[in-house]
Amino acid sequence: MSGRVTGKLLIAQGGGPTPVINTSLYGALTQALGAGCFDAILGARFGITGVLHESFIRLDAQSSDRIAGLRRTPGAALGSCRYKLGNADYSKVLDVFRKNDIRAFLYIGGNDSMDTAHRVHQLAQREHYELFAIGVPKTIDNDLACTDRCPGFGSAARYVAQSVRDVGTDVRSLPTPVCIVETMGRNAGWLAGAAALARTDADGAPHLIYLPERPFGPGKFLADVDAVVKRLGWVVAVVSEGVRLENSEPVYASTGPTQADSFGHTLPGDVGAYLAGRVARELERRSRSEKPGLCGRSSMLHVSPIDQADAEQVGRAALDAVLAHKSGAMVSLLPYEPGAAPSTRLVPLTDVANTERRVPPEWIAPSGTDVTQPFCDYVRPLIGPPLAEYARLA
Amino acid sequence: MSGRVTGKLLIAQGGGPTPVINTSLYGALTQALGAGCFDAILGARFGITGVLHESFIRLDAQSSDRIAGLRRTPGAALGSCRYKLGNADYSKVLDVFRKNDIRAFLYIGGNDSMDTAHRVHQLAQREHYELFAIGVPKTIDNDLACTDRCPGFGSAARYVAQSVRDVGTDVRSLPTPVCIVETMGRNAGWLAGAAALARTDADGAPHLIYLPERPFGPGKFLADVDAVVKRLGWVVAVVSEGVRLENSEPVYASTGPTQADSFGHTLPGDVGAYLAGRVARELERRSRSEKPGLCGRSSMLHVSPIDQADAEQVGRAALDAVLAHKSGAMVSLLPYEPGAAPSTRLVPLTDVANTERRVPPEWIAPSGTDVTQPFCDYVRPLIGPPLAEYARLA
Repeated sequence: MSGRVTGKLLIAQGGGPTPVINTSLYGALTQALGAGCFDAILGARFGITGVLHESFIRLDAQSSDRIAGLRRTPGAALGSCRYKLGNADYSKVLDVFRKNDIRAFLYIGGNDSMDTAHRVHQLAQREHYELFAIGVPKTIDNDLACTDRCPGFGSAARYVAQSVRDVGTDVRSLPTPVCIVETMGRNAGWLAGAAALARTDADGAPHLIYLPERPFGPGKFLADVDAVVKRLGWVVAVVSEGVRLENSEPVYASTGPTQADSFGHTLPGDVGAYLAGRVARELERRSRSEKPGLCGRSSMLHVSPIDQADAEQVGRAALDAVLAHKSGAMVSLLPYEPGAAPSTRLVPLTDVANTERRVPPEWIAPSGTDVTQPFCDYVRPLIGPPLAEYARLA
Repeated sequence: MSGRVTGKLLIAQGGGPTPVINTSLYGALTQALGAGCFDAILGARFGITGVLHESFIRLDAQSSDRIAGLRRTPGAALGSCRYKLGNADYSKVLDVFRKNDIRAFLYIGGNDSMDTAHRVHQLAQREHYELFAIGVPKTIDNDLACTDRCPGFGSAARYVAQSVRDVGTDVRSLPTPVCIVETMGRNAGWLAGAAALARTDADGAPHLIYLPERPFGPGKFLADVDAVVKRLGWVVAVVSEGVRLENSEPVYASTGPTQADSFGHTLPGDVGAYLAGRVARELERRSRSEKPGLCGRSSMLHVSPIDQADAEQVGRAALDAVLAHKSGAMVSLLPYEPGAAPSTRLVPLTDVANTERRVPPEWIAPSGTDVTQPFCDYVRPLIGPPLAEYARLA
């Protein structure tokens, strides 16, 4: 394997940002600058759509301050997208790569981005264009296959756990008995389940957790809420934005022609607000909902150091894979080992693209409203240092 | 003025918690323990309702760890309430005070709590029961009259400003063009306006701010949003939960018989979610909303040191007022002076109770969708150190 690649390196970011998506960019970019073998290091503006429009910036011309600042900056510093390429688009991508002599392509993203990277890799192979295309995992949803965990999840999970602990402390002290916290997670309940780490005592929040892996019954939900309020006087219920009815329809869907992206994924509706309304009307209990939403994936105050180390390492490893002339692979994280630096391997993009890793059935409590101890044992180290602990008067 | 009070001291907390409501409790309690003159120091569980039920805890029997922990604990450590006392209730309160020889009463709360403290004071006077009743200001809404600022506001304003900056960084990097952030603030726009401190550049978030001080026109809102998207490609609009139509009706109300408290205040509806739906349907633009809600008043990571110093000082000053045999007054903060410890005076509760301080007209921009420089100059020091600054690639 050569340690050099001729031509240009292109890095892009796709899908929803995470608190550490730019740390992966930082890892890949600093590794590439250190390798010193590329004719240029480009960044695509707004993901793959920037490739189509040849909208590039020079990453090798950024100041060291800007580069260092990536590690503490939320959002996608290059801009991101949710655009599904058609066949003609893929040809255009390859034309742009040829024209610009782009020979290495790192795509930092989730399932959809891995699919895009995979297809670009396949087309380049078919057309005998030498290209090293590597996927860099990123998603707060933690739903990429073939990796122990996804960079972005640990920090977003920390946000969920700390916020539910905070909100629980507030609700417990007040006479509004019902609080519903909506978490992100389109199809997987990893983030909703992470709320379980908020608990400080047997009666503490959260009392109920609803994951999209289980069909959601509004009637059962109302009965669950009522039972906890009758027992404790208050309840914090955590509901994933992605919960669906028995018939697979969303519990509450956004309406409007623009609410689906070109992958066909609908923007989830405000299910927490909807359910709080039903609690107020049908249970006649004072009820409110919280939807921190984007706050939870853009708050740098909740970054998990382990998650950040993962994010940087997958960026570095992706660049190393390019230098080793690999293509059509994603960097995958091996299981977490306390105290050890994150270690990675490469997995074929074909195994990752368009599959989703959901919470396994044995990690969901039989009640369907909680996660099990092994789930918590898996998530706890990923969220970093212990959460803030609060005083309770005796 | 005597430096001693015979009998017992009672402390209670009312209304919505703030990140520093327990710091005021800490200030009052440690000052009282230092004074060493009370037969006992009691805390009422769940505000004035705890008085009615004689549900007290011994604050002078708490461990020093627990007392020190109050400064870093959200929620109302004593429990809080939203209960409007009737005439019979007031007599009951005085009976309980008599029975327990409670001679000093500190109520940490907002407008409604100040009204309650005021009426208890009046009744004690009428019935010639010696009682020193002092109000301790507390509200994230910053809407108490006769004080420069309210403890709790600075930290909640820091949360709003930092979160809108975070969310803005996320939205700017993505193709979902419209994001609506709903802030707390039932009748006053102080918190919504604080979002202006999030801005980092002329095109940065927030682009539109809607305060309850101005009638809200849904048609104008949609046009405002559309104009910003046409100009920049994205928009972050901050909307106070308390915005009302020209006819004073809420823009979007919670429904259900339990959504009003006994003061007649309705729990605000999810106006952000409602407006995001209208944007999607009527403007046909992809749109989402965030409602951090209780997260914003329970996140200890966003506590402003200045706000915390204020909170502790108003607690201490309230106890000092009791020792000086004052009653029927609230501790008021004098205008902020950089580098100086917070200074206070006493104001009559009668001037405070049931009045609201809203954002003055000259601090609202003529457009009705922004605040002016003097507003920002007032709020900026109160939120503490500069917000996190983020890198932008060139």
